[in-house]
Order: sequence, then structure tokens, then C-alpha cells
Amino acid sequence: MVKLHPSVLFLFFLYLSGTFAMHALALYFHNIIYNGKNAENATSAIVAAPEWANLTTLAGQGRFGDVVVFDDPIILDNNLHSTPVGRAQGMYIYDKKDLYAYLAFTFVLNSTDHQGTITFNGADPIVVKARDISVVGGTGDFFMARGIATIMTDSIEGVVYFRLHVDIKLYECW
Amino acid sequence: MVKLHPSVLFLFFLYLSGTFAMHALALYFHNIIYNGKNAENATSAIVAAPEWANLTTLAGQGRFGDVVVFDDPIILDNNLHSTPVGRAQGMYIYDKKDLYAYLAFTFVLNSTDHQGTITFNGADPIVVKARDISVVGGTGDFFMARGIATIMTDSIEGVVYFRLHVDIKLYECW
Amino acid sequence: MVKLHPSVLFLFFLYLSGTFAMHALALYFHNIIYNGKNAENATSAIVAAPEWANLTTLAGQGRFGDVVVFDDPIILDNNLHSTPVGRAQGMYIYDKKDLYAYLAFTFVLNSTDHQGTITFNGADPIVVKARDISVVGGTGDFFMARGIATIMTDSIEGVVYFRLHVDIKLYECW
Repeated sequence: MVKLHPSVLFLFFLYLSGTFAMHALALYFHNIIYNGKNAENATSAIVAAPEWANLTTLAGQGRFGDVVVFDDPIILDNNLHSTPVGRAQGMYIYDKKDLYAYLAFTFVLNSTDHQGTITFNGADPIVVKARDISVVGGTGDFFMARGIATIMTDSIEGVVYFRLHVDIKLYECW
Repeated sequence: MVKLHPSVLFLFFLYLSGTFAMHALALYFHNIIYNGKNAENATSAIVAAPEWANLTTLAGQGRFGDVVVFDDPIILDNNLHSTPVGRAQGMYIYDKKDLYAYLAFTFVLNSTDHQGTITFNGADPIVVKARDISVVGGTGDFFMARGIATIMTDSIEGVVYFRLHVDIKLYECW
Repeated sequence: MVKLHPSVLFLFFLYLSGTFAMHALALYFHNIIYNGKNAENATSAIVAAPEWANLTTLAGQGRFGDVVVFDDPIILDNNLHSTPVGRAQGMYIYDKKDLYAYLAFTFVLNSTDHQGTITFNGADPIVVKARDISVVGGTGDFFMARGIATIMTDSIEGVVYFRLHVDIKLYECW
């Protein structure tokens, strides 16, 4: 006869019911887009654009078709000059005439608190205040992670600078 | 002593055995590619191409290297003029000399039946009748979803228009 | 009263504890990048680049912003001329000033041993000897797979050729 401690089952049911986030992280990342003149400060660049657009100005029609590659500092607060705890690296693709994007990127964390990567994928309706994308995998401290990240635009300055607040909740980890 | 109701275990074993799809959806999406002249109707555009190609004509050699960003209507039937229930947004990358593609996109559903996103990733051997790609995550009604989507080409008209039938089976959800 | 065979629970705990890889595969893939002159041998091509770069030479500054689409043979040993067991197809994006890349690709396996696809996503710090990326999904023999792939650079010849050794461990499959 096998005996299961009730708390094990309780955790298991919480796990199945989706009410239990094993890790919660709140981080900011800062993006400065290359505009032809700011090569020293830029953390991202347009690398592909449709036929009617170019690589130094975001396209008209909600930027549809622009592909931007980024290497942004991840910071614990909203100050661009604080020490980064890692880098957010990947791309965003503007894929709707009213400012939706598809995101595919990884947080590479490298601090005393966290070592490892978290990979994100999903739709980002930029004009919505809080929007969810999926955490599809992780390595290191985040081995086999899955979860949801809620993205909020914390600041926008013209078309060149924006800052995102990311709330990560991991519901599966090992 | 812990008591488990047999039906709980039965569901759990079905879950582990992979024979139980929690949600099944069948949808169509319609893609019209920009060819330099159809800006008003186009739902997608070539945004990157190898050195030997351009942004208004799909490349030779199985279109290898073309990256297409799309924002396609999702419809419950195969009629382009029915009311959409959402948008399929993301990109496809032609990555083989005989018409394979890599897909990374999200279904953004917004109807009375479904609110939320489903994110897809995987290889699409276009010339195969029914081919499977992975559902790697979801949000909203599809919180934490995983599964398989079977894609079938329902119609092709020249190089500019195609319609895909997508059968989505979610084997994990919360 | 429900009776569980102890070995079932034991497997289940191994599964939860993450010490049990259900499948382990070791494969090589070979990449030859198009440089304007090697169209016949090339297995990949730069398809997007930032404003300061072009499509036949990897960009300066750690190649930041280059997007490369590939269709590489997968081979069981490190000999480019052995019979492939499948293709590695997708893209890598150089997204850091010191040679990080974001990878999104699928192994399409088609041999007597394996039929199916495995989809990968994640950050690849190219200069690190062994680095982990996430397996986010699979189809066919790899239905619903998740796991970790450890990538090691097995050989580099100039900027045009490299060979990767990939150790795949699947911790979830059905």
C-alpha cells in the first residue's frame, strides 16, 4: 500500500489548478532604437522592412512588417542607469496595421540571484495597458520553466525609446 | 490515509497517455501576399530576402530565405468574406529549397466564444497534405496551453493567395 | 480504495524531479553560409541586416542584427559527407554585440529510427563552450516533447562554415 502525504497531493492539485506560481519576477527592460544617428546608445535596430519602408524609420501603417533585433539591459527598477541583472535579447515583429507585435526573445539573467535563461513567445498588442505573452522554456535556474509574462509599457519617448515592465509568473518548473 | 476518487486517476492517466484533447478548434486563415500592386488587400508582406531576391516577388529555389510577416483574418469557414473571429499574426520563413517553411505566429482570438491567444512554432512542409506544428503556449482562455495543430492547405491561387485549414488540439491546459 | 503500483509513483516522482530524460539524442548539424560566391554549397543565407551592413558579409560589432535562414543537414557523426538523417531548418538572429544569437528552428527527422519534428527556441551565447536552449515542442515520434538541448561548437572554419554538436534531452513526452 502506498502512502501519500496529503500536502503532496495538495501541491499537486494546486499545480493542476493553475493558481500557484512557483516563481514570480518583476523586471524592467529598456529599448533604444537605432535611427541612423544614435549608434552609440542604440540597443536595437530595424533589420527588415517591407518594400515601402526603410531601416532607419519605423514604417507607416502601424509599422507593419518591421523586424527589430534587440539587446536590451534588464534592470530591477525603472532607471536606465542602474546596474543590469541581464539582457533581453531577440526580436519583435510589427505584424498588424494597428500596432500589434509578435515577440520572440530570451531573458539572459546573470546576477547573484539568478543564473539562466527564460524564453518568451507571443502576441503583444502594444496599445493595451497590460498584455500577456507565454513563457515557453527556460534553462539554468529556470530549467523547463513555463508560465505567463504580463507586459506593461512603463514609458515611451517618441519613437526611439520605450521601457517595459515585465511581471513573470512561472507555473511550471522543476 | 488519502482517498483518491478513481475518476481523478482515470483522467490523470488519460492526460499522461496523450489520448485526451481538452480543446479542439477548427479554423481557417486567409493570406494575401503583397506583390507591389495590391497594398489595399494584402494581409502579408515579404520583409527580408536573400541577396539574390527582392521584396515583391517570392524568391526562386523554393523561395528559400524569404521572411514574410502576416496579419491574416481567422474565419470559421472557408469564405474570406465571413466575419473574422480573430487574427493570425507572426511570420513564416521559407527555409528549404523544396518549399519548407518555419512558422512562428499567434492566433489572437476575440469573439463571444473565445478570448485569448494561442502561440504556434514549428516546421511546415508546405507540399505535404496534412502537417503538424506545435502549440507552445497560450493566454486568456488558453492559459498555459500546449498541443498540436494540423495544417492543411485548403486553397492556393497563384503565388499571391492561399487559405489554410487549421485543426488545433490542446492536450495541456489549466 | 485506489491501489497504485509503487513503480508508477516512483516514475511520477522522477518525472517531477527532473532527473529522468525520456529520450536522449546526439546529433551534428553543418552550416555553410552564403557569401556571394558559394551558392551551390551554401546551406544558409543572410536575409536581413541592419542599415550599416549587407547580405553577403556578416556585420561588424559581433554581427549584431544579422538574420540568417538555414536548411542544414543533420548527421549522426561529424562528417559532412555522411548520409543525413534529417534537416535543421529555421533562423538564427545575432542579437548581441559580443556574439550572442537567438535561435528559432526545427529538426525535421526522417530516418528509420526517427520520424517527426523537434522545435527549439532560445539564446545561444556562441562563445560559451556548452550552452543550453529549450525544446518547446515536437510532433510525430516527439509528440508534445519538451526538454533541453546542449549545443557545442564542434568546428569553425572562418566565417563561412561551422558545425554544431547538439545533445538533446527530452524530459516530457507522451
